[in-house]
Amino acid sequence: MIPRYSRPEMTEIWTPETRFRIWFEIEAHAMDALAEIGVVPKEAAKTVWEKGNAAVFDVARIDEIERVTKHDVIAFLTHLAEFVGPDARFIHQGMTSSDVLDTCFNVQLVRAADLLIADVDALLAACKRRAFEYKDAVCIGRSHGIHAEPVTFGLKMAEAYAEFARCRKRLVAAREEVATCAISGAVGTFANIDPRVEEHVAKAMGLEVEPVSTQVIPRDRHAMFFATLGVVASSIERLAIEIRHLQRTEVLEAEEYFSPGQKGSSAMPHKRNPVLTENLTGLARMVRAYALPAMENVALWHERDISHSSVERMIGPDATVTLDFALARLTGVVDRLLVYPERMVSNMDRLGGLVHSQRILLALTQKGVSREDSYRLVQRNAMKVWDSYQKAGASDVDFLTELLNDAEVRAALSEDEIRDRFDLGYHTKHVDTIFARVFKD
Amino acid sequence: MIPRYSRPEMTEIWTPETRFRIWFEIEAHAMDALAEIGVVPKEAAKTVWEKGNAAVFDVARIDEIERVTKHDVIAFLTHLAEFVGPDARFIHQGMTSSDVLDTCFNVQLVRAADLLIADVDALLAACKRRAFEYKDAVCIGRSHGIHAEPVTFGLKMAEAYAEFARCRKRLVAAREEVATCAISGAVGTFANIDPRVEEHVAKAMGLEVEPVSTQVIPRDRHAMFFATLGVVASSIERLAIEIRHLQRTEVLEAEEYFSPGQKGSSAMPHKRNPVLTENLTGLARMVRAYALPAMENVALWHERDISHSSVERMIGPDATVTLDFALARLTGVVDRLLVYPERMVSNMDRLGGLVHSQRILLALTQKGVSREDSYRLVQRNAMKVWDSYQKAGASDVDFLTELLNDAEVRAALSEDEIRDRFDLGYHTKHVDTIFARVFKD
Amino acid sequence: MIPRYSRPEMTEIWTPETRFRIWFEIEAHAMDALAEIGVVPKEAAKTVWEKGNAAVFDVARIDEIERVTKHDVIAFLTHLAEFVGPDARFIHQGMTSSDVLDTCFNVQLVRAADLLIADVDALLAACKRRAFEYKDAVCIGRSHGIHAEPVTFGLKMAEAYAEFARCRKRLVAAREEVATCAISGAVGTFANIDPRVEEHVAKAMGLEVEPVSTQVIPRDRHAMFFATLGVVASSIERLAIEIRHLQRTEVLEAEEYFSPGQKGSSAMPHKRNPVLTENLTGLARMVRAYALPAMENVALWHERDISHSSVERMIGPDATVTLDFALARLTGVVDRLLVYPERMVSNMDRLGGLVHSQRILLALTQKGVSREDSYRLVQRNAMKVWDSYQKAGASDVDFLTELLNDAEVRAALSEDEIRDRFDLGYHTKHVDTIFARVFKD
Amino acid sequence: MIPRYSRPEMTEIWTPETRFRIWFEIEAHAMDALAEIGVVPKEAAKTVWEKGNAAVFDVARIDEIERVTKHDVIAFLTHLAEFVGPDARFIHQGMTSSDVLDTCFNVQLVRAADLLIADVDALLAACKRRAFEYKDAVCIGRSHGIHAEPVTFGLKMAEAYAEFARCRKRLVAAREEVATCAISGAVGTFANIDPRVEEHVAKAMGLEVEPVSTQVIPRDRHAMFFATLGVVASSIERLAIEIRHLQRTEVLEAEEYFSPGQKGSSAMPHKRNPVLTENLTGLARMVRAYALPAMENVALWHERDISHSSVERMIGPDATVTLDFALARLTGVVDRLLVYPERMVSNMDRLGGLVHSQRILLALTQKGVSREDSYRLVQRNAMKVWDSYQKAGASDVDFLTELLNDAEVRAALSEDEIRDRFDLGYHTKHVDTIFARVFKD
Repeated sequence: MIPRYSRPEMTEIWTPETRFRIWFEIEAHAMDALAEIGVVPKEAAKTVWEKGNAAVFDVARIDEIERVTKHDVIAFLTHLAEFVGPDARFIHQGMTSSDVLDTCFNVQLVRAADLLIADVDALLAACKRRAFEYKDAVCIGRSHGIHAEPVTFGLKMAEAYAEFARCRKRLVAAREEVATCAISGAVGTFANIDPRVEEHVAKAMGLEVEPVSTQVIPRDRHAMFFATLGVVASSIERLAIEIRHLQRTEVLEAEEYFSPGQKGSSAMPHKRNPVLTENLTGLARMVRAYALPAMENVALWHERDISHSSVERMIGPDATVTLDFALARLTGVVDRLLVYPERMVSNMDRLGGLVHSQRILLALTQKGVSREDSYRLVQRNAMKVWDSYQKAGASDVDFLTELLNDAEVRAALSEDEIRDRFDLGYHTKHVDTIFARVFKD
Repeated sequence: MIPRYSRPEMTEIWTPETRFRIWFEIEAHAMDALAEIGVVPKEAAKTVWEKGNAAVFDVARIDEIERVTKHDVIAFLTHLAEFVGPDARFIHQGMTSSDVLDTCFNVQLVRAADLLIADVDALLAACKRRAFEYKDAVCIGRSHGIHAEPVTFGLKMAEAYAEFARCRKRLVAAREEVATCAISGAVGTFANIDPRVEEHVAKAMGLEVEPVSTQVIPRDRHAMFFATLGVVASSIERLAIEIRHLQRTEVLEAEEYFSPGQKGSSAMPHKRNPVLTENLTGLARMVRAYALPAMENVALWHERDISHSSVERMIGPDATVTLDFALARLTGVVDRLLVYPERMVSNMDRLGGLVHSQRILLALTQKGVSREDSYRLVQRNAMKVWDSYQKAGASDVDFLTELLNDAEVRAALSEDEIRDRFDLGYHTKHVDTIFARVFKD
Repeated sequence: MIPRYSRPEMTEIWTPETRFRIWFEIEAHAMDALAEIGVVPKEAAKTVWEKGNAAVFDVARIDEIERVTKHDVIAFLTHLAEFVGPDARFIHQGMTSSDVLDTCFNVQLVRAADLLIADVDALLAACKRRAFEYKDAVCIGRSHGIHAEPVTFGLKMAEAYAEFARCRKRLVAAREEVATCAISGAVGTFANIDPRVEEHVAKAMGLEVEPVSTQVIPRDRHAMFFATLGVVASSIERLAIEIRHLQRTEVLEAEEYFSPGQKGSSAMPHKRNPVLTENLTGLARMVRAYALPAMENVALWHERDISHSSVERMIGPDATVTLDFALARLTGVVDRLLVYPERMVSNMDRLGGLVHSQRILLALTQKGVSREDSYRLVQRNAMKVWDSYQKAGASDVDFLTELLNDAEVRAALSEDEIRDRFDLGYHTKHVDTIFARVFKD
Repeated sequence: MIPRYSRPEMTEIWTPETRFRIWFEIEAHAMDALAEIGVVPKEAAKTVWEKGNAAVFDVARIDEIERVTKHDVIAFLTHLAEFVGPDARFIHQGMTSSDVLDTCFNVQLVRAADLLIADVDALLAACKRRAFEYKDAVCIGRSHGIHAEPVTFGLKMAEAYAEFARCRKRLVAAREEVATCAISGAVGTFANIDPRVEEHVAKAMGLEVEPVSTQVIPRDRHAMFFATLGVVASSIERLAIEIRHLQRTEVLEAEEYFSPGQKGSSAMPHKRNPVLTENLTGLARMVRAYALPAMENVALWHERDISHSSVERMIGPDATVTLDFALARLTGVVDRLLVYPERMVSNMDRLGGLVHSQRILLALTQKGVSREDSYRLVQRNAMKVWDSYQKAGASDVDFLTELLNDAEVRAALSEDEIRDRFDLGYHTKHVDTIFARVFKD
């Protein structure tokens, strides 16, 4: 997580201020429950809320205390006591630091997930808008980077939409994975704290009760959370790479937005680099990498050790902040992507109509020409087009014209029959079907 | 995937024979749909089913053809035609190889997921049985590998149960991710094939229709699938490491099963190595690693490239076969685990009752002894116990006796009050609550 | 490791037959040393060599024995005894299984490294040959996938040469890392075996003595080995992706070799897919992934556990066989790559000479035209070229002509001065310098 | 990289201030070379050095400029010009941003490597000191976590020494990998800059010339660098886990240092947690993870793209700062590790001498007792010891005594012969040999 690739709302979740505020809420809600079951005075709980709500926690002061106590939660509680006064002695009763730390971490991850889901929603909206905008904009589909059959640019956007709709569903599931609360005391047995406290805090913090914790919340939940982020990042990479390909000088069917007066582009108008999507490619690598230590964190020793902590202090912010930034950046890219339908057509046409060779071949065989002869006929015309294309990158031979002028071809196919096979509508006739599937809501 | 770590049912899914059988079913179901909508003769579809069902596909023969055609699906279709006869010309009409390959791969993954889910069910049953068997068997809970507070061995098993119940849910979701079918032709536009064919095949093969494919089924689905397997493997690692710890010579609270007459253990009875769980630790590393190339597979170029194929030829079998084996092995380990409750107690007792020091401290302060004095009193007795333990690994000083003999302690606490704090029931009083949460079904 | 992506020489290293042969050699060499220092009879050592050399080890038989003994080395020794007779009782004296297994694994890795180094040598030769062949073949250099300044195709090959020369050096270092032998007995203390035995076996097997082993050879060595393989794989990926880019329909500056009569290419001559390099991209992902479990293998518990074993049974063959195959495949691709210098020129020219805009800008400013005016002059001519290119993918406006016809430009620069700036030689003048650096041997 | 796990010297390398200072040096050295070959006035070069050396670069000001120019190097040059005055127009002539950025990044990595190597040296010194300190301190060696044969604690430290000596060598190689300089201009052809400039800057900055760059320095170098860091981290993890094991309550043969008066340990003297080594375990996971994106960075498109940049902005500091911190922390842990030789002996003794059962078995067979009888004799005595140990964690039966009292055993072995087999010296007799190998310098 570095400022350059961060957005304030997500960064905010990971500040000490936010963390201390969540710690306070957990402690205060626990007080309420403890008061309710008669363990601490109700007045004390009330005081804690009043004083704590009014307090502005001083991070530097807490750090200072921590340098002495060598313990972050104790440092915070000490600072909190400075506001609360004598009633502070009732705070944290029967609890362990992990109760506060783990529940807080999950609150942070849930909030992060909420932002990420909102990010995906914005991205989905952008993809959908561009999909319908270019639903019928024919461009060549490419397999292996080689021209194959026509698709439309709208279909590409629909595919992205469908993919990120799946990502959204996964993020919702990932959020649910980590939306749990544990207030179960040392080694998770509730020896010193009533399970009702956990139930109350969970509800108050918008979480579910962790059915069985062992002082810590089990880390398979977090492994699943960060693995999901890695998969979402991989989908970002896919769309980013698609755009990078489309922006290549030789392809140039789309470009990341640049303002008309953007400096540097004047003398070298061709030098508009897809730097945003390249950047996204790199960010995706990072988010993916964070999934691994999260998985290695699962196997804590016995009831718990603390090896996961350093990992999570890093990947908690790093993964969520980076993914949030990447999703927002990608949304901006999609939203403002410069799309060149004219060039899409001209790219396809540079192969002189060769894209239709398959259909001609089929038409010939359907007319009873032997498979071998059909091949020979298509080939001798196709190769003329191709030779021209291969050298210059744009054929000055037209496949259609060649076919129309080939007597042997014409013996089997009329002009209309040949021209029919050059109809792009043949390839796009099911675009609406696909759109209906993808955008069913 | 190597024979040593494979089980036949899962391996079977990945044999050429199974693959060709699935290919055949996809082609034959597609024929039915094509016949239904009038593209091919109904008689031909019938013939394909009859001849194909009766056929025994000859893998060596198909390999031989592939060496000539350099194309696996064409080789298969050629071989199929040898059985079907002239009607074979109607097979695969309007389809691409990817339609067959991708749908087949998903069928295989779905079947693999079904086995894995069944594996987890068996593991859950074992964990549950052992959990109830040792629900009340007190053992020391350890944080950081250090004795903390008492738990029960049943709680450990309940935690494993809860964790694998989550794994099961994740596997069900992962199965759903890949349970899709695409029969959409070149670049996925249905230009040459009616979407109804896809619908029919999907239903017949127990899959959902892929809303938008691009010749290939989008690989974010598979990334999620293999990432999930990596998370499940990490949970296996956790339980394996728990058992490895418990089997350490110094701990020895549980052991992997060994038959009484098992060779080699006679002269060195202490040398029973947790080799199965060590093996599981290694296997988990492998399954986890396979998640990465699966994620890198997502960003195929444009409508598709073939870079994912080599990866999937490897991790398809490798990840599922290894995880299946690991789950089954772990189930066996749990099922037959030798558990030593007597040793659990003696391990705890070796610290001479120190585990109760916290409660005594609390009792003293509750009686009005100052925090500082309470510490001093507990400490001077605790240190005697500890010094003895530290040297010899088993204390010959008893904390309870020391406390009872400490006049200053006794001034604050009666014998009964002291003895009360040594009650293990205090720590296990909520075991039933936790069990009720975990085993709610 | 699957047959499709395997080559026999590397696969051979990992067969049971090879393994048993290496085990035999280790045992027999150890016998020699034991005999030399008087622990076993010299006659016995001689007998072991004679009988063992003559023996054909029966893998099925050893497997059969292992099913009873549950121990692979014991099974082998039992089988070996069947050949050797009574003198077999002197074999393996003072040794542990790990002595045999770990030393054997390292012998296998060393042999694998030798093959990989030879593979890289072949690749280097291919890169070098193509580098000199196309040393002066100008093509556009691309940054961000966008046309930048001219380079030559030979430079691309020189870069690949330099990169794989580094890979070679790394493989040599990786080989050295694992070229160690340990015959140190249980927990590595030489309690039951004289260190001179280890020294003798090491020398005989072409290895160095492991300075301190703990029954096992430390796994940081293997982590480094497999990490190195992952880096080499990443370099393969880079060159593979370069070729995939060059083969794109719109670029088509190079193509993987296809035989003139290769089927399928006749009717769709444009549909030549870079399937080999795509395949290499996938294989690189796999080899890279294997580095991770190798790193996780380092932290064995205490003197050793067996968790690394399952990992190594898999990645030993998987990583080396796959990388060997990938290097050989890449060598074939480079060796026979179809290179189209004519198209390289035409691709560059499609931008109508815009690639020289920078030099014109510089020339103008050097002539005293203000920076702003220079920009304006270049821009107004460049944009004409660009507008034409952007739409059609090939400009029908020529930058040079436009400049020559621009009175304001001509006021500052003569025709010769302008034409001079369109000289490609300006960009290639240091190619020889670079070649001299790269191919210094 | 977070402050909690950072040390100032390494962090310093990655500050904007350091980066700008390095940029300045690169530019100024390039000026010298340009002046030398007559491209720019010598006076200008001198001015740049004088003004630049005196300047204090204002990071906020540069950021401000970057917000306008959207380009970091231009922003810096603009700011530099504010100090230098008119001669600034000669700076950066013929260079690209990558020349500055990549060379600077390598300078930073080289400096980081120097710190890491120094860190390892400190760690080696600590390991060596502790190795000699406990060279003869016998403790049980454990395979699979199970007592095996005796080793010494010094041997454990020697093993760590040997492992980190290998790490040092790897770091030196990794440093060499990235110690290159590229000043080769756009797409690396030296079209606009003389190769002599690169040679001069390389030498001045303590780097080698990059033989062939493509505007960027090839990223396989950096992949190797970060992969090496991942391997070093794995060795850290190994030693950390060893210590965590030794500190377990049941083992307690060593402990991380705690000051006698350290709070919290008084009432629960057993609760000293190995939090530093647990922390190191987590940090190792992170450093290992960073190797992956570094490997994925290798395959930049064509001559370069910018996808590696975001990755390196993160892992450059993150990996080096974390590893530096981890090495220093581990050194501290080793240096002050509390070692309990007395407990090592008592742990071994708790098995009642069973550790010697193998030697007795051998002694019996050597005396001509049949293998079967020998087993039976050893077993019947061993099992008595074991049964006692298994229950209570410390045997009250003594193997030696039992053997001495077993008539059948005594028929084959005299008291002295039996006692001889209980000699620990048998196991440690080669410790000096191993030390001589490890500490040969």
